[in-house]
Amino acid sequence: MLETVDLSLKLSKQEYREAFEPLSIRLAELQREARAAGVPVIVVFEGWQASGKGTCINRLTNVLDARGFKVHYTIEPNEEERLRPWMWRFWTKLPPRGAIAIFDHSWYRRVLLERLDGTVSEDEWRRAYDEILQFERQLIQDGAVIVKFWMHISKKEQKRRFKRLEKDPALEWRITKTDWRRHNRYDDLLAAVEEMLQRTSTAQAPWTVVEATNKRFARVKVAETIIAACEQGLQRAAIQNEAPAVEPVEPPDRSNPLSRVDLSLHLERDEYQQQLNELQDRLFHLEHEIYTARVPVVIVYEGWDAAGKGGSIRRLTRGLDPRGYEVVPYGAPTAEEKQYHYLWRFWRNLPKAGHITIFDRSWYGRVMVERVEGFCSAAEWQRAYQEINEFEAQLAAFGTVIVKFWLHISKDEQLRRFEERQAVEYKRWKITDEDWRNREKWDQYERAVSDMIQRTSTVYAPWTIVEGNCKLYARVKALRTIADAVEAALKHAS
Amino acid sequence: MLETVDLSLKLSKQEYREAFEPLSIRLAELQREARAAGVPVIVVFEGWQASGKGTCINRLTNVLDARGFKVHYTIEPNEEERLRPWMWRFWTKLPPRGAIAIFDHSWYRRVLLERLDGTVSEDEWRRAYDEILQFERQLIQDGAVIVKFWMHISKKEQKRRFKRLEKDPALEWRITKTDWRRHNRYDDLLAAVEEMLQRTSTAQAPWTVVEATNKRFARVKVAETIIAACEQGLQRAAIQNEAPAVEPVEPPDRSNPLSRVDLSLHLERDEYQQQLNELQDRLFHLEHEIYTARVPVVIVYEGWDAAGKGGSIRRLTRGLDPRGYEVVPYGAPTAEEKQYHYLWRFWRNLPKAGHITIFDRSWYGRVMVERVEGFCSAAEWQRAYQEINEFEAQLAAFGTVIVKFWLHISKDEQLRRFEERQAVEYKRWKITDEDWRNREKWDQYERAVSDMIQRTSTVYAPWTIVEGNCKLYARVKALRTIADAVEAALKHAS
Repeated sequence: MLETVDLSLKLSKQEYREAFEPLSIRLAELQREARAAGVPVIVVFEGWQASGKGTCINRLTNVLDARGFKVHYTIEPNEEERLRPWMWRFWTKLPPRGAIAIFDHSWYRRVLLERLDGTVSEDEWRRAYDEILQFERQLIQDGAVIVKFWMHISKKEQKRRFKRLEKDPALEWRITKTDWRRHNRYDDLLAAVEEMLQRTSTAQAPWTVVEATNKRFARVKVAETIIAACEQGLQRAAIQNEAPAVEPVEPPDRSNPLSRVDLSLHLERDEYQQQLNELQDRLFHLEHEIYTARVPVVIVYEGWDAAGKGGSIRRLTRGLDPRGYEVVPYGAPTAEEKQYHYLWRFWRNLPKAGHITIFDRSWYGRVMVERVEGFCSAAEWQRAYQEINEFEAQLAAFGTVIVKFWLHISKDEQLRRFEERQAVEYKRWKITDEDWRNREKWDQYERAVSDMIQRTSTVYAPWTIVEGNCKLYARVKALRTIADAVEAALKHAS
Repeated sequence: MLETVDLSLKLSKQEYREAFEPLSIRLAELQREARAAGVPVIVVFEGWQASGKGTCINRLTNVLDARGFKVHYTIEPNEEERLRPWMWRFWTKLPPRGAIAIFDHSWYRRVLLERLDGTVSEDEWRRAYDEILQFERQLIQDGAVIVKFWMHISKKEQKRRFKRLEKDPALEWRITKTDWRRHNRYDDLLAAVEEMLQRTSTAQAPWTVVEATNKRFARVKVAETIIAACEQGLQRAAIQNEAPAVEPVEPPDRSNPLSRVDLSLHLERDEYQQQLNELQDRLFHLEHEIYTARVPVVIVYEGWDAAGKGGSIRRLTRGLDPRGYEVVPYGAPTAEEKQYHYLWRFWRNLPKAGHITIFDRSWYGRVMVERVEGFCSAAEWQRAYQEINEFEAQLAAFGTVIVKFWLHISKDEQLRRFEERQAVEYKRWKITDEDWRNREKWDQYERAVSDMIQRTSTVYAPWTIVEGNCKLYARVKALRTIADAVEAALKHAS
């Protein structure tokens, strides 16, 4: 989930002041409301060393009533703690109902630093995942709000910060040899973080990745996320033991990956034709290798209406042997399909080992059209992120190559294409009233797509956003992404 | 959970006929109600070879409308199935809303026979646990009812059945070399079954162990359990997305472990004195060994009012060094304790490695007094079995020895002791109005105790029922159980 993160996000001092002041007022209010409602709030900060956890916590607690929160700084377990089951030290630090506990590092240390440093056995950190999930489930069912942050900076940025701290005589003590050793193993820890984010992002206690290069940006995002989580927790408490389908309170979307797509990317026709020929040739040979190596391939096409899914899929399949692939288009579920869990109709059409299935729209309908149009309850689409990650993890564990495209175009470009479709007779069948209606909800859809990409982009099934204003560029990018992913998997399998 | 199972349970033909006829009528009704409500029902039969799964399924399906159910017999995956992720073959066999699917063997094959036979890698069956829990959670949240049976017979009984089948020329083909090979590894499979029952008994899809020596008994218990699960599922569907705290529909308690306790067991005073001295001496030495080996010990005392908990604990601690143990009595939670998850006050008082903590009443209050008196919601005590098993598993993983006593006396014996307490002045403080009130709910408490013992007796934390009508016998049995358990653990640790 970390590869979709844009670490250049920032706020100016002016923007920060304007954003943070109302947030701090709301935070203080929520602290009082949580106390009155008896809702315990648990805030977890994990993140890179020097990512700014400390100052961020400091700014937060400045606005809170000191009688109602406690900050716990989690380092190596002490002697007393080592003499008990490892979760003991967190159980005994839980906030009572109505109070706030902030953990600077937490139980996740076990699957991060302790795992990295080898101070726990593989058996222990593997089992820790179960124990963590049990712990959080038990607390949430008991009414707790759990908010979890991963404070993210790049390796380069961490190095810069370490050096700066070392230059300051007052702060140099903060950077130790251990910190540098861990810095050098940035990529190892990154892989562990990815696994942690995937395995422990549940519907009720999801992780929020915070772009922490700019501290002002980080603080605002953290405050907004806590506010949204508390509001949701308070709603849950209010209708306690009733409707689990709470209308979600959305924090603002500060990290929309669509906002940084460069839609000016394009390709000239002659260059396109040459690259397309090469790619189709490459894919033709890869299809055969897939078959011999018994590798299953899943390709998902999602995108705006008129973004060019159909054209892209045609360029992909043109060169392929039809015995090796299948295109499965999905629209609204049929009456029969509605009789099953929403994933059922996709499970049915999984490729056999050695084959390719191209999904023209997919299970992501649940968190896009079904969410936006209200075809499912909030509880249903909220838990769907986890369900989808679990589903794709099962495919990946079987060795499946998973490629997922979001074909992106601008709102203006969509309008141009819609109008063209309406004007040109042989294209008119492609445009319906529904397309125009969906277009009116562009912002809601964009939010849904942004959440989807952030929450379901995984190492084993990453999203690729395809810049689609230029169809030629988009087609070539999609085909190249597939060829590269398949080649990498074949290399890995052999 | 299997060691509390009484495999001698049976029904006469007469009893069977009287019990089964109304059940079969109700089953047929429920099939129609589930169809009308659109609730899919999934029934899983796992169990020993020759435990009678087939005939049991047969009797069930005889009473159902054939258009509404499907039986799936799960053997080794075929070629088509092997070419997909392993769960594919179950996803594609799910019942549509309103229909019933019966699985004779199921996805649990992966963690049982396939694990035993080594046809899956350790990595695969370990991961399968996560995938199974995900699968069932996804279906249940989608409204499905899942009922899971483990058909249990002893090794001896299995052998008897195999021999009988082999003698019958019409049936001998049913017993293969593979069956005998697996029979010889009965204990290995038993350990895997135990693990499966513990790890996959969730609040919404618990396992039911069926005593299958007597087929009539098994069929009645199976039918009753399915009926209760369907009724609960239908209630859930009716108040869909509302109150998760459904009043549970209880199937009759056919396997009450208290019903077979021999309360006539007793000990003469001179024999008692001699054994007590020996045991206290043994425990004194063990306490020291525990300390050196850094083994933590948890002893839980639960039992009827006036069953003799206090006296038993005094005999236990009399010989011990007070620096090595602690007795923690628990009553109703205090105002402070109520501010936390109900397990919090027990987590706080866990023994350090090398120490003993004796819990005079415990976390089991949740599924006894809080259940019976309505101090918590049905949803809360129903999920508590899983929470408790998870809690104890975490202690066990840390190396904790866990001994749990249910001190059992007859209702008459309790009355005698109550009256004695009231008559003897220096004992009068021990008896309160509450004791008399609790006594009136004896049957409800007995049901709660029976469920508790069946659902939370695990390999790592087994219940010991102590026959308590004779106090002398009870004290000696408790002390011996502790000494034996600790000794076994020390042997294992060294």
